[in-house]
Amino acid sequence: MEYQDTSLLPYHLDQLIELAIIEDIGPGDITTAALSKKTLKGEGAIIAKEPMVIAGLEAAYRVFLRIDQEISFMAMCSDGEELSEGDEIAKVSGDFSALLTGERIALNFLQHLSGIATNVRAYVNELSDKPVRLVDTRKTIPGWRALEKYAVRMGGAKNHRIGLYDGILIKDNHIAAFGDIRTAIEKTRQTASHLLKIEVEVSTLAQVKEALAAGADVIMLDNMSDMDIQKAVTEINKKALVEVSGQVTRSTLGKLADMGVDIISVGALIHSARFVDLSMRISLL
Amino acid sequence: MEYQDTSLLPYHLDQLIELAIIEDIGPGDITTAALSKKTLKGEGAIIAKEPMVIAGLEAAYRVFLRIDQEISFMAMCSDGEELSEGDEIAKVSGDFSALLTGERIALNFLQHLSGIATNVRAYVNELSDKPVRLVDTRKTIPGWRALEKYAVRMGGAKNHRIGLYDGILIKDNHIAAFGDIRTAIEKTRQTASHLLKIEVEVSTLAQVKEALAAGADVIMLDNMSDMDIQKAVTEINKKALVEVSGQVTRSTLGKLADMGVDIISVGALIHSARFVDLSMRISLL
Amino acid sequence: MEYQDTSLLPYHLDQLIELAIIEDIGPGDITTAALSKKTLKGEGAIIAKEPMVIAGLEAAYRVFLRIDQEISFMAMCSDGEELSEGDEIAKVSGDFSALLTGERIALNFLQHLSGIATNVRAYVNELSDKPVRLVDTRKTIPGWRALEKYAVRMGGAKNHRIGLYDGILIKDNHIAAFGDIRTAIEKTRQTASHLLKIEVEVSTLAQVKEALAAGADVIMLDNMSDMDIQKAVTEINKKALVEVSGQVTRSTLGKLADMGVDIISVGALIHSARFVDLSMRISLL
Amino acid sequence: MEYQDTSLLPYHLDQLIELAIIEDIGPGDITTAALSKKTLKGEGAIIAKEPMVIAGLEAAYRVFLRIDQEISFMAMCSDGEELSEGDEIAKVSGDFSALLTGERIALNFLQHLSGIATNVRAYVNELSDKPVRLVDTRKTIPGWRALEKYAVRMGGAKNHRIGLYDGILIKDNHIAAFGDIRTAIEKTRQTASHLLKIEVEVSTLAQVKEALAAGADVIMLDNMSDMDIQKAVTEINKKALVEVSGQVTRSTLGKLADMGVDIISVGALIHSARFVDLSMRISLL
Amino acid sequence: MEYQDTSLLPYHLDQLIELAIIEDIGPGDITTAALSKKTLKGEGAIIAKEPMVIAGLEAAYRVFLRIDQEISFMAMCSDGEELSEGDEIAKVSGDFSALLTGERIALNFLQHLSGIATNVRAYVNELSDKPVRLVDTRKTIPGWRALEKYAVRMGGAKNHRIGLYDGILIKDNHIAAFGDIRTAIEKTRQTASHLLKIEVEVSTLAQVKEALAAGADVIMLDNMSDMDIQKAVTEINKKALVEVSGQVTRSTLGKLADMGVDIISVGALIHSARFVDLSMRISLL
Amino acid sequence: MEYQDTSLLPYHLDQLIELAIIEDIGPGDITTAALSKKTLKGEGAIIAKEPMVIAGLEAAYRVFLRIDQEISFMAMCSDGEELSEGDEIAKVSGDFSALLTGERIALNFLQHLSGIATNVRAYVNELSDKPVRLVDTRKTIPGWRALEKYAVRMGGAKNHRIGLYDGILIKDNHIAAFGDIRTAIEKTRQTASHLLKIEVEVSTLAQVKEALAAGADVIMLDNMSDMDIQKAVTEINKKALVEVSGQVTRSTLGKLADMGVDIISVGALIHSARFVDLSMRISLL
Repeated sequence: MEYQDTSLLPYHLDQLIELAIIEDIGPGDITTAALSKKTLKGEGAIIAKEPMVIAGLEAAYRVFLRIDQEISFMAMCSDGEELSEGDEIAKVSGDFSALLTGERIALNFLQHLSGIATNVRAYVNELSDKPVRLVDTRKTIPGWRALEKYAVRMGGAKNHRIGLYDGILIKDNHIAAFGDIRTAIEKTRQTASHLLKIEVEVSTLAQVKEALAAGADVIMLDNMSDMDIQKAVTEINKKALVEVSGQVTRSTLGKLADMGVDIISVGALIHSARFVDLSMRISLL
Repeated sequence: MEYQDTSLLPYHLDQLIELAIIEDIGPGDITTAALSKKTLKGEGAIIAKEPMVIAGLEAAYRVFLRIDQEISFMAMCSDGEELSEGDEIAKVSGDFSALLTGERIALNFLQHLSGIATNVRAYVNELSDKPVRLVDTRKTIPGWRALEKYAVRMGGAKNHRIGLYDGILIKDNHIAAFGDIRTAIEKTRQTASHLLKIEVEVSTLAQVKEALAAGADVIMLDNMSDMDIQKAVTEINKKALVEVSGQVTRSTLGKLADMGVDIISVGALIHSARFVDLSMRISLL
Repeated sequence: MEYQDTSLLPYHLDQLIELAIIEDIGPGDITTAALSKKTLKGEGAIIAKEPMVIAGLEAAYRVFLRIDQEISFMAMCSDGEELSEGDEIAKVSGDFSALLTGERIALNFLQHLSGIATNVRAYVNELSDKPVRLVDTRKTIPGWRALEKYAVRMGGAKNHRIGLYDGILIKDNHIAAFGDIRTAIEKTRQTASHLLKIEVEVSTLAQVKEALAAGADVIMLDNMSDMDIQKAVTEINKKALVEVSGQVTRSTLGKLADMGVDIISVGALIHSARFVDLSMRISLL
Repeated sequence: MEYQDTSLLPYHLDQLIELAIIEDIGPGDITTAALSKKTLKGEGAIIAKEPMVIAGLEAAYRVFLRIDQEISFMAMCSDGEELSEGDEIAKVSGDFSALLTGERIALNFLQHLSGIATNVRAYVNELSDKPVRLVDTRKTIPGWRALEKYAVRMGGAKNHRIGLYDGILIKDNHIAAFGDIRTAIEKTRQTASHLLKIEVEVSTLAQVKEALAAGADVIMLDNMSDMDIQKAVTEINKKALVEVSGQVTRSTLGKLADMGVDIISVGALIHSARFVDLSMRISLL
Repeated sequence: MEYQDTSLLPYHLDQLIELAIIEDIGPGDITTAALSKKTLKGEGAIIAKEPMVIAGLEAAYRVFLRIDQEISFMAMCSDGEELSEGDEIAKVSGDFSALLTGERIALNFLQHLSGIATNVRAYVNELSDKPVRLVDTRKTIPGWRALEKYAVRMGGAKNHRIGLYDGILIKDNHIAAFGDIRTAIEKTRQTASHLLKIEVEVSTLAQVKEALAAGADVIMLDNMSDMDIQKAVTEINKKALVEVSGQVTRSTLGKLADMGVDIISVGALIHSARFVDLSMRISLL
Repeated sequence: MEYQDTSLLPYHLDQLIELAIIEDIGPGDITTAALSKKTLKGEGAIIAKEPMVIAGLEAAYRVFLRIDQEISFMAMCSDGEELSEGDEIAKVSGDFSALLTGERIALNFLQHLSGIATNVRAYVNELSDKPVRLVDTRKTIPGWRALEKYAVRMGGAKNHRIGLYDGILIKDNHIAAFGDIRTAIEKTRQTASHLLKIEVEVSTLAQVKEALAAGADVIMLDNMSDMDIQKAVTEINKKALVEVSGQVTRSTLGKLADMGVDIISVGALIHSARFVDLSMRISLL
């Protein structure tokens, strides 16, 4: 499996690193400052303390680089890789104070992103290669959208649109404002770039038919019963992509996939992940 | 109970809102743009879809304000308050497009911060007013430290130090670098401001004695057994504050409190919280 | 015709205004400073000095607002509207020094954006409602992408993708790297969101067939002869959208439209526009 | 001829590059991301597709550097140099994805700045070394002032003041506010640094005399007839510098120079330039 | 006397205020937070605790505004005004916590800028209206250039050039690089805008003659003896402005003025000023 | 003596350097630009022109680095070291224009920070190792807090709290708002981290007793008479730390130390320092 596409690591990562350094180090690391021995060198090993899918190595590397340009960082694995408890993730070496000062920030990046990748992988495994596309949502931590969606890809799932500019999703409120589904689709088709598909969120079978007739490219079935989902898939009959959303859990994934839906979107991939357990063992050289 | 202290809402909140707007709206909300009817007005009600402790109202308000200065936002509750499913959290009214465009960003702030506050409250309730101080750690999402620690206070717990500058915590690596606990304490005491206490992390009873003898203000028992914790509390005998850290769960909180420790620190207060379920019902006026 | 969709005015407009103020006013407007009479009030009228399509009123307004929060700005027309020489565009009134200081920056925004809108409208008129979509390209002035694309819409044309994230355009270099067109399409389809279409740039009829067979959503005919374009349109036969690009001029637009292509992209809409002629007449009150 | 003075490349160039990367790459280059082969190396050659004066090599270089620190960029010419169609401008080599991702942004910087330099050179050639100073104005694209004025110098003309802080230009509105020309000159002379000259914009011969009597260092004849310009030059008689502004075209430049004016300012040098035609040929290594 | 020209208050003042708030308040004002009573209102009076020339009222106002948009700030005097001990400078009223939180930052702006204005006024008074121009230098605190030069004007002196872009000052190192004074003047005259004068720094009478012959607009006599200054003034004989620099003290100002020099530049106006003594008396309402 | 702890050089130093470059170089160094000879190389020696304690070498280095990445900077001493007139501080070599352009900014950083360090050392020497802690205050130049406090440490004194977040200082206004000293201490103790001590500012002996009884960790005697200070020290009797503040001069330091106070805070350490005299001798290579 090929998870690695670090070219999508967002260019604003450096802005988050800057915020992180200001909030954690701010006017200075007073404990380390008291050391005042610039000659001490150290080596740190970042270790997995539980099984996980790793993500965020580049972020951890850049954190240390920002703190001390002469630090050396060697990744022992690649983003997207599955690790066991005790596996070594990266070796960092250089000025001892810099290692101590950067440790927590670097780990926070790794623990959050690997937490998401690990959570996603559990969902992906549940699907055991069934032909359905598991995707995330826009329910993400503000400022972290691109990084969290990167972690989703590292976990093995795909991304729904990134923001309000790279996909059209017509919801009930839009429909109310435009008047009806047909008008909403036609107007947005006219405004938007010809490279964007139009997805319509529906909650009844009547709306499914209406969206289909109006030429929706993707139809999202929101919080519909299994029976209605099955009827919708039959009705749509490959004339549009079918996405299911709402109240999906890991245990219902397989059943949905078997119903023939094309896409399942799960906000919990990102918003219910927790930090994985990592630590950095530092030793004096 | 008095949870509200919004004066501690960090001034860099606006930076996070800016990042959030760039990542979600970026070059523009194309779905809403197709509406092109500036005369539509709407009203939104933000509703709790499960029981929760709310936090982040000010953030949600400022998100809408940044998108449209003429929007009106009325909070129906205060940060720190417990809500039931169905409770109304806030009313937002104004330009219909602005409501649609700002909805997800505002909810993401509220869901993340309320998620932490709600998680924290469950721990706090476990303690049922036992005389122990429950605190967070520096295991937070980069860029979000001050906001997440604000949510911890709204949940009813307290904060450990914010960063590396407002408290001294001497860990094993520092001890290795300084030579021994006594030297580490003396050197940092000399460098640091006279308003900062010195905490030492120890993992054996021998170290407890060493730290106590060297004048530590706070002694952190890291991953020690219940028996050793009990012995340490007895040994320290109020001559320093005792903090317990590592492998604490909601169910072991009460027992630790009964052992007479002063402080319990739990990273999971923040890093294992999940979004609470909220939604915004928008209607055309 | 409905050109107005100011909700797409990019949120980073304020960053450009900040840069503009620093570069033009920097440490201060010394000529105006010598006035040192805070009581002088003035009124300015922004006037069209040639026929034009106006765009950028919101930008001009925000420039004055940034310089003096108490200035009043009243637009006398809407973005997208056609004006004749002598028409009044906006009235600005308030502190006389603020009017003098802000004048050039506000006009520069208006002249550049209206220059694009006016240029675009001339192309649009050439097409006299023929059923083809005229679009821009990514050949834009760095930092101005979203604003310039907004001006294109005000001129009456549509936007191609904004950047490298809201549409997939496979060019010869991508094909070389992936190996062949089919692999390129399949790999990008797998990586990208399900809301994005895939466009392939081709320069021979053989490539047209290959792209069609591989399932391209849009086929861009790059610098092909009229005869080949005609053949390609026949070959594709509505199974994909057809875009023509390269060496398109205002005078060849009509002919291309008549050939049945769906989309014509023209970089010159933006990159060959010039400032329209505007001025601001200021008088003391 | 010596055009090169890159030390004047403004330090905020990096801010524009940052904006350009956010607007074009934003959350990631999805087409390139699908490649996911970090081992591919490539080489690009930037080629002139029409005769031009090149400007902006440093900007193009820094764009690639920001995207990938290990890319190599070799300029084959210098800013200010005249190139023929087909000439090689620069060679870029390194990671294949980085070349693809950075190409458009780098070219946009080069095409805009070279477009200005090329436009300026045509005006300069018209003057064939006549002893007059051709200068630009403050009619520039917001955020681009210093870079565009740099391109003017590369084209062979000179700069008028950069902003409102490095030169004093008293216009009709200032005169109205101060009361009369003499007061305006005296007050601004008093406020401003002793290193700044004072220029007065006039439109009648009476005003020319008034400005001269009041000690103006430079007198700008705004939109005056050829006959009045001639009379003004005679009247001023080298006691002040004479600048002509307004309705100057390439074909009237020579005539104005022959009248003995010292300075001719032309906004169109910058605001009516168009992108030159460049391309980057990339090949896999 | 008219000192007030607040239109020159630099637009980047808000950036300094932002830095100041981050460094002083950062993650929050914990003392004030403990108050947690949003209903408390207060009133503060900023009082002069020694005689001074006030400067920076706008800065103080904007600090409070940034902390709480509803605070009210009423200046009781104007920048440039002389105050006696006990005079009231401004009244601030609003949320009690906001007053406490903003107090120190606002006072720091006022104390630093008024410190400079007060120091400058002492030099100005020494000159008792002798016809010489007292100016500052570029020896300023990084980031504070425009604000400190504003304070100099409020003190009653004038500004030398702001930076390296609004005036030409040829020093010994430039002369060495260009070859000789004449070449340096001719080359910079050619490069620079026609609105900038050229000043040459000299240290011998031979150089004075050389600079004069080469057409320098201003000649700076650097660290020359009184006798040589007198000879230089005679030599120059109004054909250029004469500036004296180096080792000037308050007590030597008058003598230099009497020698007929035009300009005296004194770095100590800014870099040797100290905070004036101010305080803010806050009371509960 | 060990003064060096550069790990506390704040990470926002680069922001100040950026501001400094924009304000001093802005759109370009026109004098140097006229040189337009990129082949000139030079060497500069930064020299002490009076006895001083040096501070800010890292800042000076980074200034040159920002202007030209290939410049070489070699410090000849360390921050905190005492220098005599004529001592060489650093050697800088590289592009001649870059040396000229960066000189003033680099010197301004060094002169301001060394000015503080030198001022502080004079106070420190006055105390001749008496067992008292000399500290600074929050009276600092906005934006410079962390750097100025770094210079204080280089001078040999210690820092009081950095901002409102790393220490609690209860003043008369807080007491008024809380009601009394006891309530203020208890409430802030509850809100604040357990690593922060609580200091109370008092001005009468009655308040000393009240603060002591309420458990203050540090008691600040504000503007009290020598006699009252002596009584307070006796009363407090080591049960809290005693800080003296207000109207302390260099000559009264020794006497206060002898009274047994623990801490003396002096705002003048920072706010009354002046630039030390430095220069950079540049020569062509």
